[in-house]
Amino acid sequence: MKNDTKNISIHDLQSNEPSYLETIFSLANGHFGIRASDPIANSSTAGTLVNGFYETSDITYGEVAYGYAKKNQTIVKLPDLRNIKFVDDQQRAFDQSQLISESLDFETGLLNSTYKISNPDGKSFELNLQAVLQQSNDEVIGLRYTIKPVDYFGKVVGIKHFNTDSATQKSDDPRKSRTVDTLTYAKKTIDGQQELIEVTTKYSQMSLAMAMSVSTGLEQVFSLQPNQTVTFDVIGLVSKINGILDLDNLPKFEEILKDSTDFWQEFWQNSDIEISGDDSLNQAIHYNLFQLVSSTGRDGKTNIPAKGLSGTGYEGHYFWDTEMYMSPFFAYTNPEIAKNLIKYRYSVLDESKKRARTLGVKEGALFSWRTINGQEASAYYPAGTAQYHIDADIAYAIDRYYKVTDDKEFMKNYGLELVLETARFWKNFGSYSEIHCKKRFCFFDVTGPDEYTALVNNNYYTNRMAKFNLLFAVDLIDEFPKKAKELGVSAKERDQMANIAAAIFLPYDQIKGINQQDDSSFKKPVWPFETTPKENYPLLLHYHPLTIYRYQVNKQADTLLADFLFDDISHDQLVKEYDYYEKITTHDSSLSRSIFSALAARIGLKQKAYDYFMATAKTDLIDLQGNSADGLHVANLGGSWLTIVSGFGGLRVKDGLLTIDNHLPDQWDKLAIRIKYQGRLLEIVYRKDATEIHIIHGEPLPIKVDGIEETFK
Amino acid sequence: MKNDTKNISIHDLQSNEPSYLETIFSLANGHFGIRASDPIANSSTAGTLVNGFYETSDITYGEVAYGYAKKNQTIVKLPDLRNIKFVDDQQRAFDQSQLISESLDFETGLLNSTYKISNPDGKSFELNLQAVLQQSNDEVIGLRYTIKPVDYFGKVVGIKHFNTDSATQKSDDPRKSRTVDTLTYAKKTIDGQQELIEVTTKYSQMSLAMAMSVSTGLEQVFSLQPNQTVTFDVIGLVSKINGILDLDNLPKFEEILKDSTDFWQEFWQNSDIEISGDDSLNQAIHYNLFQLVSSTGRDGKTNIPAKGLSGTGYEGHYFWDTEMYMSPFFAYTNPEIAKNLIKYRYSVLDESKKRARTLGVKEGALFSWRTINGQEASAYYPAGTAQYHIDADIAYAIDRYYKVTDDKEFMKNYGLELVLETARFWKNFGSYSEIHCKKRFCFFDVTGPDEYTALVNNNYYTNRMAKFNLLFAVDLIDEFPKKAKELGVSAKERDQMANIAAAIFLPYDQIKGINQQDDSSFKKPVWPFETTPKENYPLLLHYHPLTIYRYQVNKQADTLLADFLFDDISHDQLVKEYDYYEKITTHDSSLSRSIFSALAARIGLKQKAYDYFMATAKTDLIDLQGNSADGLHVANLGGSWLTIVSGFGGLRVKDGLLTIDNHLPDQWDKLAIRIKYQGRLLEIVYRKDATEIHIIHGEPLPIKVDGIEETFK
Repeated sequence: MKNDTKNISIHDLQSNEPSYLETIFSLANGHFGIRASDPIANSSTAGTLVNGFYETSDITYGEVAYGYAKKNQTIVKLPDLRNIKFVDDQQRAFDQSQLISESLDFETGLLNSTYKISNPDGKSFELNLQAVLQQSNDEVIGLRYTIKPVDYFGKVVGIKHFNTDSATQKSDDPRKSRTVDTLTYAKKTIDGQQELIEVTTKYSQMSLAMAMSVSTGLEQVFSLQPNQTVTFDVIGLVSKINGILDLDNLPKFEEILKDSTDFWQEFWQNSDIEISGDDSLNQAIHYNLFQLVSSTGRDGKTNIPAKGLSGTGYEGHYFWDTEMYMSPFFAYTNPEIAKNLIKYRYSVLDESKKRARTLGVKEGALFSWRTINGQEASAYYPAGTAQYHIDADIAYAIDRYYKVTDDKEFMKNYGLELVLETARFWKNFGSYSEIHCKKRFCFFDVTGPDEYTALVNNNYYTNRMAKFNLLFAVDLIDEFPKKAKELGVSAKERDQMANIAAAIFLPYDQIKGINQQDDSSFKKPVWPFETTPKENYPLLLHYHPLTIYRYQVNKQADTLLADFLFDDISHDQLVKEYDYYEKITTHDSSLSRSIFSALAARIGLKQKAYDYFMATAKTDLIDLQGNSADGLHVANLGGSWLTIVSGFGGLRVKDGLLTIDNHLPDQWDKLAIRIKYQGRLLEIVYRKDATEIHIIHGEPLPIKVDGIEETFK
Repeated sequence: MKNDTKNISIHDLQSNEPSYLETIFSLANGHFGIRASDPIANSSTAGTLVNGFYETSDITYGEVAYGYAKKNQTIVKLPDLRNIKFVDDQQRAFDQSQLISESLDFETGLLNSTYKISNPDGKSFELNLQAVLQQSNDEVIGLRYTIKPVDYFGKVVGIKHFNTDSATQKSDDPRKSRTVDTLTYAKKTIDGQQELIEVTTKYSQMSLAMAMSVSTGLEQVFSLQPNQTVTFDVIGLVSKINGILDLDNLPKFEEILKDSTDFWQEFWQNSDIEISGDDSLNQAIHYNLFQLVSSTGRDGKTNIPAKGLSGTGYEGHYFWDTEMYMSPFFAYTNPEIAKNLIKYRYSVLDESKKRARTLGVKEGALFSWRTINGQEASAYYPAGTAQYHIDADIAYAIDRYYKVTDDKEFMKNYGLELVLETARFWKNFGSYSEIHCKKRFCFFDVTGPDEYTALVNNNYYTNRMAKFNLLFAVDLIDEFPKKAKELGVSAKERDQMANIAAAIFLPYDQIKGINQQDDSSFKKPVWPFETTPKENYPLLLHYHPLTIYRYQVNKQADTLLADFLFDDISHDQLVKEYDYYEKITTHDSSLSRSIFSALAARIGLKQKAYDYFMATAKTDLIDLQGNSADGLHVANLGGSWLTIVSGFGGLRVKDGLLTIDNHLPDQWDKLAIRIKYQGRLLEIVYRKDATEIHIIHGEPLPIKVDGIEETFK
């Protein structure tokens, strides 16, 4: 039976703006993505994006200084594989098109679009285009064009070539992408049926091949007759970076669809979420998960671009979003992908060691704030490089993966080294200072997650995360002593790390009884919210950074994010802390509300938890930020899972035990989630008055459910 | 009798590098400056600079944000008036030149340069070029070319035209200038004797005219004969910005020389300094004062570019250097100039009010950190706009001017309003916060003078200066109640300013017993000086700002500058404070050592005072920073006067009384200085065991000399 919440169509959307639809209906398989272009419209925003395929250019500064990021890395928009040209019996192009219907099926991965296509006389036919990406061999896409006459009859020529003219749009908005006009294309046609292009970037010196194969011919003539349809398939290919393509033995469209359907079937088997009581929400969540996994590099060499492979926004860069907002989903549902996301970080470890040296830190690694190739590409260090916490965020993701999978082999080969090098960074980056007559370990001039506060001392989040990072390193050194020794760890270094972790200063305000965002935050005046007009949000577009920084105002969860991650403060303190920080948070970052929702659920603020969640669950489907046309807010896709599972579902690993608390919103009848845990597949069903655990595959497991530990079978 | 320390020649210099000599021997009169080019060499760095004549261009940021400075303002290098072409009897240019001698006379303002000029056969003549700027009509320069054959005899054509080909050199060094290639020139020749060009900038839409008049003809033929010389004069003109030129009734060379000589005679009469015991030092000081006054705009519309009119470094921008390092000299010797420097600030007051609004401050004015036209041109706000202290620096200069001149008329028409609008800025920019259980007025996210520490809270210098600024405003409101009321001051506002001034927080460390640079500075680790190789200075060229900012390390005097200006802490504290901050100061700024020297003199650290002074007194003459070729370090020229007079001479106005302390270095026999004070001209002579006061003109005056108040006649 067809699941109505596992597909989406234009009728579910409020906007039909073409570039917005290109994003929403984009397809991807972690390797490449294709925006859902009108195939005859030559949209300037349409095209193909390959994960990790970028061009570089010099970053220009008003005033440059030592150690600044030197090169932009910009994801390259490649030709659109959907594009086609139709010519009528008078050699005139069919140049008008109108979208009639479009729908995407999350159970098969099939995108189905129908257009009315007209010639200059207004005579038309209907074009149905089906598109589906292969998932097992991620270089392949199947496209099926079906043509049905409306009032045009007679000869049509269908012409399928790569259009290499379109260029990425130019923009000053840092959230968008910059122009890339330094590509070279070499084109080759084989037997009139296949076209191959090799794309080479000038400065980053990368290349790849794209191809399409049309067994009926790249330029085919057919005749439209009443009550007849014409159908032909195009098999598209996008090689790996610096790879080549094999144009023989291409799969058929049906095989690609089968492959995709198998993939999605298994995906939902392991990852499904069902909310009873709100179909539209359920649909949004399914959409989010569908697009999240589509966006994610799975090869250990790539990661998750901030806009997935659905748009060039943020230039295709990878941020901490991966570790904090997206990898939780993968760790609990598709741990192989979570592992490969960490392997990507391992692949840029050497680059990150160099970056630490550039920042004057003599040991360890500092991961770049925004990057594809591991080199820093953030041109504004106060909200870029200064967010040192990315190091500990990576360590945290490794810990989560390890807890959920118990994958010792991976820890020995990759995890330990990453945790060690990030811990070494903290050890050398920080320093002892006397605070309240005690020697405390401090970190100066750092920026936490909240980008409305920059270059502060002892940011609580950063310090708490660094403490965790060091303690985790110590644990792993103890667990893998041989490997640790190979990595140069001495007993002295281990103890040093333990001592530093114990001495790390965590700002706490005695009077308020809550953790303080940083050493000075509570001294600053609170932002004048009451006199700030609504149209002045987001603040960053209407106030100088110096204005924003000198007030207590948060763009997103900062101290509260640490509370969410560590679950280590009392309920009373959490209530106070939540209340305090909520009042000064604008949620101008799309990463904010999911954490506020999850914490509200934990505190028992049910309505608040629900409202925050609902405000972001459909971020892209309602174009909440107004810029979904540039690409999906992928971190938010992951954030919605996080809120449901960690917030409403209260799921986490605590004291070595899978722990679940039922915080089901009143608005829902039932919530069912599927997760993997240490080789098992579990279904957890939250009802208003009960929580059920089903172990679908695997051994019995002790779980703490709503405060009571029990072994489930 | 010729004063040997009032001139300089190439023999006094260690470098004969042409672009360095162009700077050292540059001439200026506040309106325009001319670099001392080799007249036939077409040097790319030679040319004419007009104070305040700039082109704009867009500032490009790696990542832009609201309120950032939008436009570069770049002083324009205009054609070189010294340039000439000589052609031999075979139509070949004399294309070789060799500098034989060059000397500049500080008593007449005459620059005398002699070159050996050769044709391709190596046959040569000697060219003597005398150049002198008119000072009373500052649009005029006289140039006298005298030609004496060596071994070339016969026909020579002398061709004098404006060469508009040379462009400002391109550079990435922020201390240098950017390329300007958006000028348009319109050229006109009159009667073969005069050439006029109109220069227009494309974006800033400014224009001016330059002209030269050669009564013997722009292209003149003469014949060189043994034992004969040929002499001709060129009268050059540089109009005011957007002005026109009158080419009739031009002065003769001798008249210009007379005008210049009169000017310098009066200048030395009022401003002389004589050090007995070190002629080379004396010469350096005279050079400094000569170039300082040459560099300074005197029309109330212009100011002092950081490199004077001697080079395009720092793009011809005006900084706080004016108020803190240069205007003291003028206040005490040429108060009319000091007044006009303040009037320039008044001319950009409206622009500065707008800037305050952009920074989210709803009242008052914020002066731009670096600017020509009043708009912010600093592309790095942490060491630009965040240096809010410039507002109080301007107020301080007004106070100094007022104390020294008692010019009530000026205060009523300009001073009060400037002090009021800056005080209003502080009032609205800061906020009350509880510190040690008291309500204190604080300033957050500011940068003090020390650019190795940025975006801190309660920078001592900034807070101390703001306190002064507010108190000064209150005093002036009380003194000029009617005018204050016209400017919208209510009794409530006055009291609010007084209350805020009293509540301003001044960080003080109880344990160390000294003022703390900012709220957190003493928590940070001290820079690892012992492991920093010598070649890694200046630090800013070898470490990321984030690295520098997280340590205790100072580029220049910061807290100590406040101590120097206010003289308000105990001797014991000053000794401790000096010792502490000296240890963490690199003096990577050329503004640093003069303050360390003056304070050392005040403390009684005689050798230290002497050493610091000697290290900078000859900054440009020994090319200490290696970049004098880009222009003079004008603030340092003023700093050397400040050190001598305020440091060794202990001169200041304290409690309404001119106060003098004799801190004569052991190395000197005698120091004589001349200053003006409230309408009087004084000479103060410091000897090893005595201080003499001579009132050359004017009424008797009570002065506190070496602790004893006495009325001098």
